Amino acid sequence: MAQSDRRRVAEAGAVLALGAVEARDRLASGALRAVDYTEACLARIAEAEPQVQAWTWLDGDHAVAQARALDQRRLSGAPIGPLHGLPVGLKDIIDTAGIPTENGTAVDAGRVPAADAVIVARLKAAGAIVIGKTVTTEGAYLHPGKTRNPHDAGHTPGGSSSGSAAAVAAGMVPLAIGTQTGGSVIRPAAYCGVVGFKPSFGLIPRTGILTQSPFLDTVGVFARSVADAALLVEVLAGHDPADPATAPLPVPRLLSVAQSRPPVPPTFAVLRPPGYDEADPEMREAMDELCGLLGGQCFEVPLPAAFDEADKVRKRINFAEMAKCYYALERRGRAQLSAELRAALDEGKAVPARDYIAALDWRGLLNAALDPIFERCDAIITAATPGPAPKGLAGTGSPIFNGLWTLCGTPAVTLPLMWSGGGLPMGVQMIARAGDDARLLRNARWLSEFAGSPDGGAASDREQDQ
Amino acid sequence: MAQSDRRRVAEAGAVLALGAVEARDRLASGALRAVDYTEACLARIAEAEPQVQAWTWLDGDHAVAQARALDQRRLSGAPIGPLHGLPVGLKDIIDTAGIPTENGTAVDAGRVPAADAVIVARLKAAGAIVIGKTVTTEGAYLHPGKTRNPHDAGHTPGGSSSGSAAAVAAGMVPLAIGTQTGGSVIRPAAYCGVVGFKPSFGLIPRTGILTQSPFLDTVGVFARSVADAALLVEVLAGHDPADPATAPLPVPRLLSVAQSRPPVPPTFAVLRPPGYDEADPEMREAMDELCGLLGGQCFEVPLPAAFDEADKVRKRINFAEMAKCYYALERRGRAQLSAELRAALDEGKAVPARDYIAALDWRGLLNAALDPIFERCDAIITAATPGPAPKGLAGTGSPIFNGLWTLCGTPAVTLPLMWSGGGLPMGVQMIARAGDDARLLRNARWLSEFAGSPDGGAASDREQDQ
Repeated sequence: MAQSDRRRVAEAGAVLALGAVEARDRLASGALRAVDYTEACLARIAEAEPQVQAWTWLDGDHAVAQARALDQRRLSGAPIGPLHGLPVGLKDIIDTAGIPTENGTAVDAGRVPAADAVIVARLKAAGAIVIGKTVTTEGAYLHPGKTRNPHDAGHTPGGSSSGSAAAVAAGMVPLAIGTQTGGSVIRPAAYCGVVGFKPSFGLIPRTGILTQSPFLDTVGVFARSVADAALLVEVLAGHDPADPATAPLPVPRLLSVAQSRPPVPPTFAVLRPPGYDEADPEMREAMDELCGLLGGQCFEVPLPAAFDEADKVRKRINFAEMAKCYYALERRGRAQLSAELRAALDEGKAVPARDYIAALDWRGLLNAALDPIFERCDAIITAATPGPAPKGLAGTGSPIFNGLWTLCGTPAVTLPLMWSGGGLPMGVQMIARAGDDARLLRNARWLSEFAGSPDGGAASDREQDQ
Repeated sequence: MAQSDRRRVAEAGAVLALGAVEARDRLASGALRAVDYTEACLARIAEAEPQVQAWTWLDGDHAVAQARALDQRRLSGAPIGPLHGLPVGLKDIIDTAGIPTENGTAVDAGRVPAADAVIVARLKAAGAIVIGKTVTTEGAYLHPGKTRNPHDAGHTPGGSSSGSAAAVAAGMVPLAIGTQTGGSVIRPAAYCGVVGFKPSFGLIPRTGILTQSPFLDTVGVFARSVADAALLVEVLAGHDPADPATAPLPVPRLLSVAQSRPPVPPTFAVLRPPGYDEADPEMREAMDELCGLLGGQCFEVPLPAAFDEADKVRKRINFAEMAKCYYALERRGRAQLSAELRAALDEGKAVPARDYIAALDWRGLLNAALDPIFERCDAIITAATPGPAPKGLAGTGSPIFNGLWTLCGTPAVTLPLMWSGGGLPMGVQMIARAGDDARLLRNARWLSEFAGSPDGGAASDREQDQ
């Protein structure tokens, strides 16, 4: 590398601390070259990957080639997209044409899709750089991959979108994409100390993504601020005729709304979901502290009794659909699947159709039960997880505070606003009515600033400094 | 009744031979009073009901009161609806506010809904007269009600929409409504010698109608001509946010398209569905004769092999969903249910969720397999039933030629164009691509005229003459 190149990379390294929106603006104006930004990301990956292990496929040359083409496009005067020059990490259950997509299982080792997932096509059209594929748990279920928590390598990063959360937390990429069927976006985001956003069910199409449970599977994103998450989801969202969960409706203006101020200071309803009494005292104290800080803008409400069944109902749907959707995977290599996954498949096979069909009615019931709460507040706030990332890499922690919102299909965002005594991040989860994504993000940005973090960037900034 | 009243009723009696479209035009112009038309229908019912037994609830005074109000409305100059003054019979699983809706089972004896089904509200808004409720089999499944075939009281009228088919066939009402989950519209229409039309799945909302199987339940109509069926369905069709099977799309212009001529003479693909070889030789001969008549406008195609599974798949979905949807009914009175229904519920309870979910994929698969056929023809024609209405009232005949099209969600219409040696009607079934309802009706009207019946009215005219 020539002297001038080195200097350019070093300068670009400094811009890694920028948020995605800010980086995007510099990339669009030409103040920052896509090649330099990408090389800075690759340098950071080279530095941190031995410890973090976030990637399952990465090809620096391929990323730089994309960046070079984007730089040329901009210089040619051709129109550029809203993610021009931003490298994005993709959970390895999201199909990428010509790039391995192995679904976190040896059964799919060497699998190379012929076509991009719909969201990958949208990313490319928006000028994003597909920098690599991130580690997923086995089949996006519980059995962990190799990834470690960037804040403490002895702790889990959470799952199933382990690599995507860790890559953003470690400053390797500004943005990454995951999916949530139980708690697979919010949990790893909270454990890794980044913003995680699971939009309303049906906002982002899933065509070309491993189907575990069509009634629950939801695409979500990882970013270092609420605005950055809004930027990415606005590109991914929108109708896809091949995904019946999506509707032919206009895409919400997430970024501009998220960047605007709430007309009046928002009010939050604090909930203690089932399992809260068993949560880590550190988490409960941190939540109490946050509520104390919010004062009159915060009131406690009991979660409707119907939610006592939510975990059981969600699992029934998840396992029954997984038993159907993973039928071919199981036939190809049941012996290569983990004991956890085999047990879940067997449980799913035993679910009677009648119980499964009855379980589907719960989404409507639960949302109706939430209505009186949403009448009284701008968003629900609650713990994102029972505590900081548990020690050890054999599990991915508990999704108990996430699955109920996946079942409801409500948008949920986690903000890295709290810290454990051991220096691990903890997330505050905010939930709004289904379809109310933009307003949720606006209030999330408000809370991030209120709680002292510059738009939720505190955790990753801290990570950068370490 | 005064002399002048008697004469008016006698005159109106003559108009019972009119089709619904023609009667509607006279009612709208004032050439025919709604009261007179309704009283003519009531007189015909009084005459034929002892033998046919089509009704489970009928209140002549209530019908006349509606007619009187409609006449006054027209005279007041207020706008009138597209069904102004037309009496309509409703299968007794369709909720009518304040009017018993007993679902064909003693378990629901005395049940009086508080609200109208969405389609009943649409009927009323269109100026139709809710003249009464027609006999259904038990829970719209197989166990027969009291209705007899108007052509021969020793034969079944078919089911489950037994009373609706028989009432139209006996000239009691110009129009009636039923539902089809297996073959419950096409079969009784064919056995009774009237036009039966099951539109595309999702065209008519089902809110307020007994749910047996949400993936299959389809509202259909009975009429004496294709145009009459089009008139009624155009009023019933259209988006209902409470029925997720319906979509927010414009209602097709069924009546005007059905009344128009095909731009070129249509071509038909003749199919022999599974079970055809065991069909009544009279039916097979009649179909051969019709094809001979059509000559070059008709060609034979094999049904794709995937359809060999269709009957099994449809039953799996039907029974699993029925086990869920009839859960409360069963709890309230399993002992009062027929052995057939209990057996189907037990079979449904034993369906694993995985098999049920996999079965749902078949609608897409089967329609894809039909595509190459629809590329080559304007409609599929096939037998509506294996033969004329079977002797005896203990069963309702076989839906074997109907269930596959219900599973596909394709529109199907039966035309009373053929007769058995014993003087019973037999139906020709026509099928088109899902969503192609208007064109199907136009081609059905063409075939009715081609085959010598004035727009499918032959059978009911014949019935009138008997």
